[in-house]
Amino acid sequence: MTKATVIAEPGTYEIIMSRVFNAPRELVYKTITDPKLVPQWWGQRHNTTIVDKMEAKAGGVWRYIQRDPHGNEFAFHGVYHSLTAPERVIDTFEFEGMPGHVILETLTLEEEVGGKTRLTVSSVFQSVADRDGMIQSGMEEGSNESYDRLEELLATLKA
Amino acid sequence: MTKATVIAEPGTYEIIMSRVFNAPRELVYKTITDPKLVPQWWGQRHNTTIVDKMEAKAGGVWRYIQRDPHGNEFAFHGVYHSLTAPERVIDTFEFEGMPGHVILETLTLEEEVGGKTRLTVSSVFQSVADRDGMIQSGMEEGSNESYDRLEELLATLKA
Repeated sequence: MTKATVIAEPGTYEIIMSRVFNAPRELVYKTITDPKLVPQWWGQRHNTTIVDKMEAKAGGVWRYIQRDPHGNEFAFHGVYHSLTAPERVIDTFEFEGMPGHVILETLTLEEEVGGKTRLTVSSVFQSVADRDGMIQSGMEEGSNESYDRLEELLATLKA
Repeated sequence: MTKATVIAEPGTYEIIMSRVFNAPRELVYKTITDPKLVPQWWGQRHNTTIVDKMEAKAGGVWRYIQRDPHGNEFAFHGVYHSLTAPERVIDTFEFEGMPGHVILETLTLEEEVGGKTRLTVSSVFQSVADRDGMIQSGMEEGSNESYDRLEELLATLKA
């Protein structure tokens, strides 16, 4: 599978990740906005993701808990600013281990030739330091593992 | 009255506005989070502000309509990521005339000597171009007029 393109220009507030999935846009959109399916792709394989809350509507709250193999838990939450099916989701993201540090995420789905879909996520941080901290935390590797899982899940849903 | 300090470093995604108000922090926080009081300070004096929605809680939606003297209406909306009384509000902001262009706002209140309060608003945009467009729209002048009105309102609420 291809890896995501990651753009993080030095000194900016933003990280852009982009990857093409071999599935139609409507299916990608439905999959990523379905609380029942999130545990099947979100996060690394060796962790368990629990969807504590996920109201996929403007003003809806989402909260995911990740449990690692040692039983440690890490939680993340945010609110949906807008959901525009099947092309765009804008939300906020906060790791509860760093309260007050919030990210504005803009997820875009574009149709590509051959029934494929390009997913692009722009993450805008409150500062360059916050952005650089996220890169150092291994975000790129973690995201690519999620995207690999998403590609696999989409293949089963298409079948 | 003093004007707000505005910091917008070239090439960044952010605008920071900061101003000291002559009122205690709890009162400033209560005033800016009260839907009944928003029409008394938000926006320019010659416009009328209507609070269409304002649920001041995490996941709550807000929407304000501004009506100018000619009857033209401009609407703005967003969602609250978090409200931490009396010190911090994090929300999103979208001008409905530019759909899909969203700002992450972090409003912080700090106590200053003499019972005063420093209000700082960091606005982080999805791009440098969006940020520069907001500066060119006259945001600084408009915000200062809102802040003048807020200062006057706080004086009457303290009395």
